[in-house]
Amino acid sequence: MNRVEPYEHRVQYYETDKMGITHHSNYVRWMEEARVDFLSRIGWDFDKLEASGVASPVISIDVKYKGSTVFPEVITISVSILALKGVRLTLGYEMKNASGKVVCQAQSEHCFVNGEGRPIRLERECPHFYEALSELMASQ
Amino acid sequence: MNRVEPYEHRVQYYETDKMGITHHSNYVRWMEEARVDFLSRIGWDFDKLEASGVASPVISIDVKYKGSTVFPEVITISVSILALKGVRLTLGYEMKNASGKVVCQAQSEHCFVNGEGRPIRLERECPHFYEALSELMASQ
Amino acid sequence: MNRVEPYEHRVQYYETDKMGITHHSNYVRWMEEARVDFLSRIGWDFDKLEASGVASPVISIDVKYKGSTVFPEVITISVSILALKGVRLTLGYEMKNASGKVVCQAQSEHCFVNGEGRPIRLERECPHFYEALSELMASQ
Amino acid sequence: MNRVEPYEHRVQYYETDKMGITHHSNYVRWMEEARVDFLSRIGWDFDKLEASGVASPVISIDVKYKGSTVFPEVITISVSILALKGVRLTLGYEMKNASGKVVCQAQSEHCFVNGEGRPIRLERECPHFYEALSELMASQ
Repeated sequence: MNRVEPYEHRVQYYETDKMGITHHSNYVRWMEEARVDFLSRIGWDFDKLEASGVASPVISIDVKYKGSTVFPEVITISVSILALKGVRLTLGYEMKNASGKVVCQAQSEHCFVNGEGRPIRLERECPHFYEALSELMASQ
Repeated sequence: MNRVEPYEHRVQYYETDKMGITHHSNYVRWMEEARVDFLSRIGWDFDKLEASGVASPVISIDVKYKGSTVFPEVITISVSILALKGVRLTLGYEMKNASGKVVCQAQSEHCFVNGEGRPIRLERECPHFYEALSELMASQ
Repeated sequence: MNRVEPYEHRVQYYETDKMGITHHSNYVRWMEEARVDFLSRIGWDFDKLEASGVASPVISIDVKYKGSTVFPEVITISVSILALKGVRLTLGYEMKNASGKVVCQAQSEHCFVNGEGRPIRLERECPHFYEALSELMASQ
Repeated sequence: MNRVEPYEHRVQYYETDKMGITHHSNYVRWMEEARVDFLSRIGWDFDKLEASGVASPVISIDVKYKGSTVFPEVITISVSILALKGVRLTLGYEMKNASGKVVCQAQSEHCFVNGEGRPIRLERECPHFYEALSELMASQ
């Protein structure tokens, strides 16, 4: 099995709110941080993706908050590929605190667009990236 | 029918990203802005809720991005009550741009907790707020 | 005297931090909100500025926090022109809460660049905007 | 000489704006990240400071933007103590990109308050922290 190293995010003071815990909107930003790191670790860092003319905008997110987090703890985020179709990619996220408790489970759905923002079929337009994702999904 | 005036948010420059459009994480913050405004319009502004000892943390969100938005356009956000049970509230959000196009559809799910963060049954612990929500849901 | 209507910003829940007050970084964003609004009110909204090919990046900020602010209070922000030279613009900001107390005093310094990001002399390249700023500064 | 290891921040996608570069407000947040890390490295992490009943709110910031930064580059931030008086602490920040170019120079000024938010003289109320800062300033 091909495991991609999880991403770590330290909760920042400016991410807290008046409840004393991390504001829920920040988890959506951590998903992006973890996603960028995940793609980089499987050989597709942002510069390479951009050079290949492919972008993958977020078309939906689904976030379940399982427990609160506080400044300045470190959250470990594991990313996995839940589905890969011709024009769609679904990623899963599991966030744990230092004691291993799951604090958030989330998904993001992405389409693929070219430099002009037009939807593309990844398999045809950027086959190497499609294969990297496919192989990883098969090995998870 | 009891319609609550929709909330308006002007996209800010600092909410844009390098794609030239609003970064998707900001819609989650607009949901909160619209929710606070909605509760205030139905007679439960934040100070009154806080005085009654009830908080309603977000336990999940689900956001579908239907179209991009840009600085400095104004987005109109309608909030509705989708479900109200003893310990849960589900709100719906529809966001439209100035030409009436739906740019985002979303939901947020909330529980109710007291000042110590312990879950409560809204109907029993804060019946006036429960009734206000129930009546509005019935009239939607 | 030519007074430009001040800008109003309602403190948002997501702008608070674990001290229970507005996180200090948000005031820098409010300065931008107020600046965009100010330019729009004197006839130079963002679209017009962009169409004229001029951008005015921030080259320095100086913010003095005089008092804390809390969710959901409304802050009134007055913008004034402190200095206008060939290649520099300095704006001043005074923020007051509902009871009239000054909670923040700030300045931002801007240069002017064209569409390619090259520094320009505003007076020569966009004289109408320069005149609008000059007249306002004289009348303050 | 006692050198404190600089802090590193990777620019995030969500920190960019429609100019394609990091939005200027984020540097204020990086100052906080670097400050927390700096205090932790000299033996005063947030939990210890909180346990000792001392907080050090920001009373002013001064930020000079020397060059733009882009996603996903890593910025190195060195923090130094510029001044320490009975009731005031001034910190300096120098931010460099990977090629060593200074992209931002900044200062933040802090007072010291106790748990009730009342101003205190650090030397009297938390002498160990005062000494740690003094020694470091002398050795810089």
